[in-house]
Amino acid sequence: MKFYENGDALTEPFGFFCSGVHCDIKGARNGKLDLGIIYSQKPCNAAGVFTTNDVQAAPVTYSKKLISDSNSLFHAIVANSGNANACTGKQGEKDAKKMASEVARHLNIHSNEVLVCSTGRIGVSLPISRLTTGIRDAAEDIIDECDGARAFQEAILTSDTCTKSCSAKVECSRGEITIGGVVKGAGMIEPNMATMLAFLTTDIQASNIELQELLSNAVEQSFNRITIDGDMSTNDTVLFLANGNSGVDLKKESKSVQKNFAEAVNAVCACLARKCVTDGEKVTKFVKVIINGAKNNESALKVARCIANSLLVKSSWYGSDPNWGRIVDAAGYAKIGLSFNQIDMLYNDIPVLIQGVPLIENKTTWKEIVSSDEFSIILNLNMGEATGEIWSNDLSEEYVNFNKSE
Amino acid sequence: MKFYENGDALTEPFGFFCSGVHCDIKGARNGKLDLGIIYSQKPCNAAGVFTTNDVQAAPVTYSKKLISDSNSLFHAIVANSGNANACTGKQGEKDAKKMASEVARHLNIHSNEVLVCSTGRIGVSLPISRLTTGIRDAAEDIIDECDGARAFQEAILTSDTCTKSCSAKVECSRGEITIGGVVKGAGMIEPNMATMLAFLTTDIQASNIELQELLSNAVEQSFNRITIDGDMSTNDTVLFLANGNSGVDLKKESKSVQKNFAEAVNAVCACLARKCVTDGEKVTKFVKVIINGAKNNESALKVARCIANSLLVKSSWYGSDPNWGRIVDAAGYAKIGLSFNQIDMLYNDIPVLIQGVPLIENKTTWKEIVSSDEFSIILNLNMGEATGEIWSNDLSEEYVNFNKSE
Repeated sequence: MKFYENGDALTEPFGFFCSGVHCDIKGARNGKLDLGIIYSQKPCNAAGVFTTNDVQAAPVTYSKKLISDSNSLFHAIVANSGNANACTGKQGEKDAKKMASEVARHLNIHSNEVLVCSTGRIGVSLPISRLTTGIRDAAEDIIDECDGARAFQEAILTSDTCTKSCSAKVECSRGEITIGGVVKGAGMIEPNMATMLAFLTTDIQASNIELQELLSNAVEQSFNRITIDGDMSTNDTVLFLANGNSGVDLKKESKSVQKNFAEAVNAVCACLARKCVTDGEKVTKFVKVIINGAKNNESALKVARCIANSLLVKSSWYGSDPNWGRIVDAAGYAKIGLSFNQIDMLYNDIPVLIQGVPLIENKTTWKEIVSSDEFSIILNLNMGEATGEIWSNDLSEEYVNFNKSE
Repeated sequence: MKFYENGDALTEPFGFFCSGVHCDIKGARNGKLDLGIIYSQKPCNAAGVFTTNDVQAAPVTYSKKLISDSNSLFHAIVANSGNANACTGKQGEKDAKKMASEVARHLNIHSNEVLVCSTGRIGVSLPISRLTTGIRDAAEDIIDECDGARAFQEAILTSDTCTKSCSAKVECSRGEITIGGVVKGAGMIEPNMATMLAFLTTDIQASNIELQELLSNAVEQSFNRITIDGDMSTNDTVLFLANGNSGVDLKKESKSVQKNFAEAVNAVCACLARKCVTDGEKVTKFVKVIINGAKNNESALKVARCIANSLLVKSSWYGSDPNWGRIVDAAGYAKIGLSFNQIDMLYNDIPVLIQGVPLIENKTTWKEIVSSDEFSIILNLNMGEATGEIWSNDLSEEYVNFNKSE
């Protein structure tokens, strides 16, 4: 597998067109791009993973229903930033439909062949007339070159500080197949997804069912492992389109190519998820919390999440304080029955606790590790063989300042 | 019932002696009181509620074991601040025992008649020689007057900004009985208790079993309903001592006196819990999150906790931003199956949502309410009859700054 960080990922697979325009969704007249389209002339098979929040935005309900039909094919995705079209009642449902039908009208496809995503402020109806103008412009602008991919990437950003993308290429029987992916993240990122939109394109031929299995597995090991502030949004969506333009059919390929392709999907999702965490709102550190020796995966993840979401732990990371006491305390309130006297703990490869006894002589090294931009915390609970991993970050004063009002 | 906020609560019930001394537990030589004793010459029946964290400090394990014997009687409680004696292994167990035996030696009682509590830094052994000096001084200083109660209250504080106490008096067949209570709280406060120590004294006569039932009920409706930062500590303890000095025996009193006494215990715990939240680290607002119309109490509390612990919600309170979208989003990720279109929401008595539709015309009033020091958020899920309530506060930049290192 060849892997490329950043770049113009969505248009890398053959036959995908993109665009991004400014239609002033926030009414801020700041010129920022806020609406984008992904398009393939050849109809695409598709898969999607959506927020599990009880409160789901209109575009989530809309797109989820279309994706749930395993025979459905799609030509386009339309996405906007600045307004989530969430908690907007009947009007919101109408608006999501309208977005799809406007895209369909301009691209001469069927309205059911368009998926819809929104991100941004909750509880305010979309400025639909500005959106329809934007859709017209975006439909005119689509192009299968880097400029289009770049514009789309920009159009979906909210409080992100940068665009986030990557791509992978896998050798197969008839040359190469490509997967491209982009993500927007920032605040409200939690395990089980968040105000996070991710889009993957590929030129392989695969059924909706095959794609869904690949995507669900990849999401489970990537987007569902990250946490920024413990909040999960109403709009989280990951969509995966496959147009078959490479002429390669996944199910006719060898086991080894199939495996490589699955790994490439995993790698793209993992890279995007990681980019989300490091671009979290006002984040200064990337921290992997790795739990080993748990009785089962569920309890390993529970412990990892308690640590990764603890305000006291995250505040201490921000202050570069190797405060293992807070970490152990957070592990304890996961209440999976762990015993402190059995815990081994490391910062990277430097022991902190052996069977609950602190190795104070390593304290200077702990401090050095926790002072760096990126480190791992590894706990061995010595209760079994299961493991779990969560990717997190620190909590800064700037986070609170940034989020105290919209 | 007569109710008194603040005051010298612990020595209000007849026959309780208190003291507080400085023995330099932190080694900071700042003169702050850091060790205190509560004593009754008459042996006390007792009850206790302890942290449910898997990681429990040595004094918790120690005191819990003593309390678990329903025939046990106690003369004293010793408590220190500055060091939690948590995650301190075998040495920690020895030190907790040593604290009890030193108190016993100086007060001429049995070591098993002494309960032990600690709060402060995790993972560092107690400076036991300084503690034993402190215990000697504190045992000499005990007095059944306000000075003793005040000194004890001060001695248990960590990052608290003030002492927190209250008392209640209940009329009964033979005059009055009194309940006094003090608490220390601040950071790491979460439902199911936290680095929180609370002590209640009363001069009624009651069995350990009677006291335990009263205390457990009261804690469930008070300390277990509060959250500051979602963290739960290794040391949380609430202890209740009854020395019978009033000559009034609870079980011989009328149903109505028994009921009044239970209400007084509830009121004392509720008052202390509330004081904990408003004295949370760098807190500027007290917020009640009240969920009505849930299918069952468990799901009502789950929704209330998701809202009360959401960083985005707490940050917006700090900024006086009436951001109902974040509240509804947090309610949604409790995943109890609620439907946004059924939700009614109020800030105090001002409607925000009726059946999911925002009443934008009230926006100025929402903003006024959320700008005040104290307000309620009331959600009716319209799914059933059950209710739940959590008391919370905002998240300030100062919180992060304060907690970024110890």
